[in-house]
Amino acid sequence: MRPSGRKLDEMRKISIEPNVSKHAEGSCLIRMGDTRVLCTATIEDRPPPFLKGTGLGWVTAEYGMLPRATNTRNRREAAAGKQSGRTQEIQRLIGRALRAGIDRVALGERQIVVDCDVLQADGGTRCASITGGWVALRLAVNKLMKAGICASDPIVDNVAAISCGIYAGQPVLDLDYAEDSEAGVDGNFVMTGRGRLIEVQMSAEGATFDRTQMSELLDLAQKGVASLVTAQNVAL
Amino acid sequence: MRPSGRKLDEMRKISIEPNVSKHAEGSCLIRMGDTRVLCTATIEDRPPPFLKGTGLGWVTAEYGMLPRATNTRNRREAAAGKQSGRTQEIQRLIGRALRAGIDRVALGERQIVVDCDVLQADGGTRCASITGGWVALRLAVNKLMKAGICASDPIVDNVAAISCGIYAGQPVLDLDYAEDSEAGVDGNFVMTGRGRLIEVQMSAEGATFDRTQMSELLDLAQKGVASLVTAQNVAL
Amino acid sequence: MRPSGRKLDEMRKISIEPNVSKHAEGSCLIRMGDTRVLCTATIEDRPPPFLKGTGLGWVTAEYGMLPRATNTRNRREAAAGKQSGRTQEIQRLIGRALRAGIDRVALGERQIVVDCDVLQADGGTRCASITGGWVALRLAVNKLMKAGICASDPIVDNVAAISCGIYAGQPVLDLDYAEDSEAGVDGNFVMTGRGRLIEVQMSAEGATFDRTQMSELLDLAQKGVASLVTAQNVAL
Amino acid sequence: MRPSGRKLDEMRKISIEPNVSKHAEGSCLIRMGDTRVLCTATIEDRPPPFLKGTGLGWVTAEYGMLPRATNTRNRREAAAGKQSGRTQEIQRLIGRALRAGIDRVALGERQIVVDCDVLQADGGTRCASITGGWVALRLAVNKLMKAGICASDPIVDNVAAISCGIYAGQPVLDLDYAEDSEAGVDGNFVMTGRGRLIEVQMSAEGATFDRTQMSELLDLAQKGVASLVTAQNVAL
Amino acid sequence: MRPSGRKLDEMRKISIEPNVSKHAEGSCLIRMGDTRVLCTATIEDRPPPFLKGTGLGWVTAEYGMLPRATNTRNRREAAAGKQSGRTQEIQRLIGRALRAGIDRVALGERQIVVDCDVLQADGGTRCASITGGWVALRLAVNKLMKAGICASDPIVDNVAAISCGIYAGQPVLDLDYAEDSEAGVDGNFVMTGRGRLIEVQMSAEGATFDRTQMSELLDLAQKGVASLVTAQNVAL
Amino acid sequence: MRPSGRKLDEMRKISIEPNVSKHAEGSCLIRMGDTRVLCTATIEDRPPPFLKGTGLGWVTAEYGMLPRATNTRNRREAAAGKQSGRTQEIQRLIGRALRAGIDRVALGERQIVVDCDVLQADGGTRCASITGGWVALRLAVNKLMKAGICASDPIVDNVAAISCGIYAGQPVLDLDYAEDSEAGVDGNFVMTGRGRLIEVQMSAEGATFDRTQMSELLDLAQKGVASLVTAQNVAL
Repeated sequence: MRPSGRKLDEMRKISIEPNVSKHAEGSCLIRMGDTRVLCTATIEDRPPPFLKGTGLGWVTAEYGMLPRATNTRNRREAAAGKQSGRTQEIQRLIGRALRAGIDRVALGERQIVVDCDVLQADGGTRCASITGGWVALRLAVNKLMKAGICASDPIVDNVAAISCGIYAGQPVLDLDYAEDSEAGVDGNFVMTGRGRLIEVQMSAEGATFDRTQMSELLDLAQKGVASLVTAQNVAL
Repeated sequence: MRPSGRKLDEMRKISIEPNVSKHAEGSCLIRMGDTRVLCTATIEDRPPPFLKGTGLGWVTAEYGMLPRATNTRNRREAAAGKQSGRTQEIQRLIGRALRAGIDRVALGERQIVVDCDVLQADGGTRCASITGGWVALRLAVNKLMKAGICASDPIVDNVAAISCGIYAGQPVLDLDYAEDSEAGVDGNFVMTGRGRLIEVQMSAEGATFDRTQMSELLDLAQKGVASLVTAQNVAL
Repeated sequence: MRPSGRKLDEMRKISIEPNVSKHAEGSCLIRMGDTRVLCTATIEDRPPPFLKGTGLGWVTAEYGMLPRATNTRNRREAAAGKQSGRTQEIQRLIGRALRAGIDRVALGERQIVVDCDVLQADGGTRCASITGGWVALRLAVNKLMKAGICASDPIVDNVAAISCGIYAGQPVLDLDYAEDSEAGVDGNFVMTGRGRLIEVQMSAEGATFDRTQMSELLDLAQKGVASLVTAQNVAL
Repeated sequence: MRPSGRKLDEMRKISIEPNVSKHAEGSCLIRMGDTRVLCTATIEDRPPPFLKGTGLGWVTAEYGMLPRATNTRNRREAAAGKQSGRTQEIQRLIGRALRAGIDRVALGERQIVVDCDVLQADGGTRCASITGGWVALRLAVNKLMKAGICASDPIVDNVAAISCGIYAGQPVLDLDYAEDSEAGVDGNFVMTGRGRLIEVQMSAEGATFDRTQMSELLDLAQKGVASLVTAQNVAL
Repeated sequence: MRPSGRKLDEMRKISIEPNVSKHAEGSCLIRMGDTRVLCTATIEDRPPPFLKGTGLGWVTAEYGMLPRATNTRNRREAAAGKQSGRTQEIQRLIGRALRAGIDRVALGERQIVVDCDVLQADGGTRCASITGGWVALRLAVNKLMKAGICASDPIVDNVAAISCGIYAGQPVLDLDYAEDSEAGVDGNFVMTGRGRLIEVQMSAEGATFDRTQMSELLDLAQKGVASLVTAQNVAL
Repeated sequence: MRPSGRKLDEMRKISIEPNVSKHAEGSCLIRMGDTRVLCTATIEDRPPPFLKGTGLGWVTAEYGMLPRATNTRNRREAAAGKQSGRTQEIQRLIGRALRAGIDRVALGERQIVVDCDVLQADGGTRCASITGGWVALRLAVNKLMKAGICASDPIVDNVAAISCGIYAGQPVLDLDYAEDSEAGVDGNFVMTGRGRLIEVQMSAEGATFDRTQMSELLDLAQKGVASLVTAQNVAL
């Protein structure tokens, strides 16, 4: 029934290749099926101005998509002169998600910037960015610890994300673009390695939904995130 | 326990004053406690370009906040030269929410723009914008029907929204600013008049959450939206 | 002869409601007929950079108009990415006008920002902004004096403004939109409570004018400003 | 008493050199003392969109200042990414002033763009721009008439402008920068060749003023504009 | 003598992987040592407006660099709100270079947009963009020919580019970042497959140069481009 | 054969009028035929931030073109809200060129900003900007030396630039607009007073070129620059 022939609760092939960047403190290339996101983490010695003198650190994220990552070419945001509302919404989500897995006292007064750039898009780019972004963050934090800059580990738990939705009337896990563009309900679920919820975003697109459907999607999401967390740990 | 002395499931005083604008096709001033949002609906004869020739209509929303709507003055976005990520995220949410209650075929090839401008903020401005924006939209659509431009009613159902969160370890309904800035979990729930879900957004801020807590917040939200729908219908 | 049926020297109904904002140090809602402007004054502890170390204070103003304050919707300036020339011209005028009534030594090294946001427009919004802006400023300065921050009163005199013009060949006081859009000559007059001139702006729109007509408009303006000053003092 | 040693009613040396541009349809270089403005007029076959089909023409103006036209260097507006409020205010004034001397029916559905670029500034640049801009406009319109495109002359009368102000307590004509920066009252007066008023802008800067002073400045302005109109006609 | 231990006329390892994008009409990933550029070509059915009705086609290019492609993170241009002068200079060069190898009549009224995005930078990114961009262009044009849209081949010849410079007093081929940042003279040479020159850009950075040195660099460049052309043809 | 009737190696009439600005530390108006560029040099006491504490100075340049400097009017960059890629490319070139003739240690920790504004364009504006910009720079540096701020002369040598190209199959010196828009190869050559090369930029526009042609253009350029250097020295 699914365009890809996958079962309702079957995820796409996951691949996380760590340390792909010569320059970044942490990096990986994550692939979820045909979706590919290059994630890098940059350590900055100074925190953002609003945290000066608080002893707390910060993690922030930026998101971008190459113009021809998609089926038809999108105008380059740098040429357009601004980031779209969609881009800003996504990068705010990634930042919030990653911060939820961080002990900001242990991180200390510094900032880690996680850049997630979509090289190729086939649905689920924000979730892949969170899952891959966490790996880049983990690798950068490892450097801080190895260098003795952080005494205790600022990483509290894994953070990963998956999309689920109602496609052709059925709850399905890990939507690709063909499904995403037709789904009546679309959800993104961010969770910790222990299965705690960080962020739930569910939207009706055309059809409304009820609590039973919400519950079914959550069941799928928990299953999906568990696989992603395993993939993260294997990659590291 | 709540700063305002309200009970856990007690909403703030709701007031919806319809037809406050001399010019707009539909309008209201909504007050949720000290939060005040002026909502206007403008009918445009032409749909956005991507819908030309499809027979379908569109509802979109814009959101703004007066510089001194808040406790400390915010820089005017028009002077800054761009809308913040927060603003764009909110206006995209309002638009999606209102479209979920519209029959776009019955609306026909035209666009309704709903402007939600926060005159005073005390938490819950995005939810108040959706609830008040729907009233402005309803009034504008009434004009279309009275004029015989729409044969059948393009409004399928009421749309309203409420925030809930976990404050001091307890699930509470309709957060004001004092609660919102301290809440460990923060959720916005958009529903129809019949209680169907349109959008669920839950975020951990500091603490993560589980499915039981999610369920408790949903219970509160359903109660809250029911009151809002009643207030909408009374105002009309 | 006037569309509203008013006499040539008859003003619209004036209403100034003070202290409408929960947050701002000073505020009012001014109504001139159907024109409504929300004015807030914000006290900032620091002066603008160019006054650092001079002992002098500053008053500045910003002006905005809600998109549907007018008969047809205007594009939101925050979305357009810049303030129009008209907006900038008006806010520069409001700032200059209010500064003319201030003793900047008595104010000391701080800045007061007056925001004038037009909720509904029916002509004369820049004049209403000056008149209402002064009330917000007065209320904010009262707080500075009550707190003992300013020893002597930085407010030298009332400041108020009115428009006059030549409509259908006749000099008329306080133009509404219907008159303003047809007037051959259009003038804005800013004066002090004692009737001294602060700013005179007269423009031919289609027809030129002579000194006799200029004098007639000034006579009307002095009468109008006197009423506004009374309304300001009553409101306080 | 005046820094330049001029008498109270003495203007600076005026020079208007016509046809200085190889490319523009009309042009001149105007010098008012050390102030120098290069004015060009460009004829565009099409009117601005809002006049399509009305049979009416339009005249608009743009104003700029070279970065080192002033005593200290100003940031280039093209590099800053926007025109300042001052620039926009001035170019709106120039456009209104020039339109007041045009018969828009006789001009027909076309637009003339007058560019006024300040090569060197020493006070009075907006007035010099209007006076010189009119010469460029006149020369461009001459081309339209010679080519038989306009049957009757769209130019109704000369348009010229002069500044006056109260300097050291005395009304003075044609302020240079040294006077302008110290003047208590500053006025700009735009008039026709026949002495009719087009625009009057008077501002208190520090001191307020009364109707007697206003009258004295107008007397000076009428004298000054008469000299400018003579200079315009001589240059042509 | 070279930081990398390479001989004076030794290039870095070249690798061109074609067809790396699922969506683009033509694409490749080019590696010049540690420099990696993802190049995609997009076919647009319509030419740019200035070519409408001329029968001619157009090739244009855009260039970008991921924020952490470099040793220290660069601000994202989309967030900064504009493309830097360097970015614009480079993308104009790429476009000119690729157009020099195209028969615009044979291409017909359409546009090909070549996007060059630097995933990792180690010197020579603009040259790698031209060399890889040509491969993406070639692959896209192949599709046009296979589909019968272009009757004759619009590609006239290969286009490739290499940098040379004077490093530590010696002419060297294919500068990496360590050399580029220290070179006294820096040149970029764009040539065709037959060895004809398309663009020569040589800049003194610190030291000036003479015609003998210029000649030596050209000799190296011709050698280098010959290798690149071979690599292009092998990849195809 | 040339549209102007000039011989292949004949330059246009050069005129350099120094000290044309009342305000700038150095200035000139350079004319190359009908091309006219106003060049001013501004001394700033502080270096750009990246040079603080290094003891080194900086020279930078900005370039602009009046809207009607050209045959058809160009949109004003300040109104468009950004500098074009062409403008940025040119001003980067002027800055690099002028810096190549400066001893940055002798200049000390200060910055000189050279503004080149094209009043009228007829080809070769970037070369005229460099040649005239150097004169403005020289005059500003003279002031620094006269004031004893620089002990030794920071100017190492003259810097001048000329364009050459292949027009109608022949190498020609100093292209005017008529030639430039038709030339198959177009080159800009920046050299020192002693004939050393600073920058060479050659571009095929339509036709490619070979090393023999390159050599012929260099011969012409050296001849041209020698005349320009003489004109610079005469003007000083």
